[in-house]
Order: sequence, then structure tokens, then C-alpha cells
Amino acid sequence: AQMALERDYEAQREFDTRYRVLMERTQDAMVFVSLATGRITDANSAAGQLLGAPRGDLIGNAFPAEFDTRKRGEVMESLANLALDEAPGSVDLTSRRQRQALRVTPTMFRAAGERVMLCRIERAETVGETVTDELQ
Amino acid sequence: AQMALERDYEAQREFDTRYRVLMERTQDAMVFVSLATGRITDANSAAGQLLGAPRGDLIGNAFPAEFDTRKRGEVMESLANLALDEAPGSVDLTSRRQRQALRVTPTMFRAAGERVMLCRIERAETVGETVTDELQ
Repeated sequence: AQMALERDYEAQREFDTRYRVLMERTQDAMVFVSLATGRITDANSAAGQLLGAPRGDLIGNAFPAEFDTRKRGEVMESLANLALDEAPGSVDLTSRRQRQALRVTPTMFRAAGERVMLCRIERAETVGETVTDELQ
Repeated sequence: AQMALERDYEAQREFDTRYRVLMERTQDAMVFVSLATGRITDANSAAGQLLGAPRGDLIGNAFPAEFDTRKRGEVMESLANLALDEAPGSVDLTSRRQRQALRVTPTMFRAAGERVMLCRIERAETVGETVTDELQ
């Protein structure tokens, strides 16, 4: 059993490395958020650029605090509801530091018994629509 | 030591899940290729669309065989050379199944003692340049 565990461990280390390379090489801004705490557990450099802070500074922050919205308390719930919808949806929000119109598209999944949200963030201009601060 | 190993194992399982969600949610077409064998070890659905086959069918295939080029034997070497350059570079290639002009941007890394290449693939039109079948 010990041997099998060590073999699995090696295989999992490879996923760890692949995960890190993938995070930095994707052109999308990506942020992982714990649903239980609302805090950012990981973010890539592209997300750091869009949110206006080095990626290392984002980790541990409350994700809703990254945005300038009167409904900050509803951000997590809105994203969670969207993530559970059958059709993928997004929320338009303004970044707090640079007041940039952003579009956030969440996906929910379960890892190590905890619910996690992966949020893809894009500039709302590039999506080509008007930005509203409407949480659903 | 056993306990520590099991704790690490749990943490690594989380990376495994994160990796899989990230692969499917990135908008970029991504393919992992073993440098030793030249074979595809993983690919996402976006890569399946660009290369014209379900992602499951791509896994295990020789990566150079996905392209229509007279210099198929040089594809892996060209990509490896590019990946080692300081400035990120790309190679333009035509997909074999759909004869689509594609641009391949490689990154090299080491996982579990083996060299692996992550290749990002885009439609060459969207990059806005003429496509050549010139391997460097």
C-alpha cells in the first residue's frame, strides 16, 4: 500500500507541475475562489494585470473586495447561482483598483471535499457589450 | 511519514481536479506533448476542435502527425528549440484533418523527471499574419 501511495504521489506531483504551467500559459485571466470563505486561493499573472495587483498579492484576499460595487455582499451568491445554471453565464463588475469594466464567468467544482469556483475574467470591452453593475 | 504523505496526497488530488477544470475552462487550445516520445499526453476540447478530432482521440497520437507538413520529422525539434529560446516564439503549421492554418506556441518544463511541452494552438488568421510552413 505504501508503494502504491508513493507511485500515486509521483503521478499527482506531475499534475501539480502541469497545473502551474497551465495557469501561467493560458491567455485567460483565471482566479480560484473558495466558496466557503469567498477568498482567492490562486490567481494567474493575467488576473493580476486585470485586477491591478501582483498575483501573489491577490491570494488570500476576499474576491468580492476586488470589485467596486454597491452590492459587494451579493457577489459570491450571484456567482454561485450563475455557476449552477445549465447555460454558462457571467456577471459584469468594475475592478476596484483600476475601475476597469470586467466580465466574470464562474464554474463550480468540488476539490478535497470543498466547493471551489474557477472564475475567468475578461475586459468587458473585448466582449463588445455595455457593462452594467447588475448582479442577478 | 505515512501521515504526512497522506496529507500531501490529499493536497495533490486537489491539484489534479483544479488541473482538469482549468484545462476545460481556458479558451485556449492546449496540448501536452512528451518530448521523449513526441506523443500527446493530454489535450483539451478546444484543441480537439482546432485539430478536428475529439480530445480523447488525440491522446496517444504523435503530435507531428496532426499536421500537414513536408518536414514532419523536424516538428518536435523546431518546437523544442523555440521553447528554449528566451523570447516566446511560435511555428505556423496546417492541421492535417481540416487543412486549417494554425499557430503553435510551445513551453517546455520538467515533470516527474521527464521533459514535457505545453503547446498553445490558435487559428493563424486570428493572429493576423500570413501563414508559412517554415520550420525554423
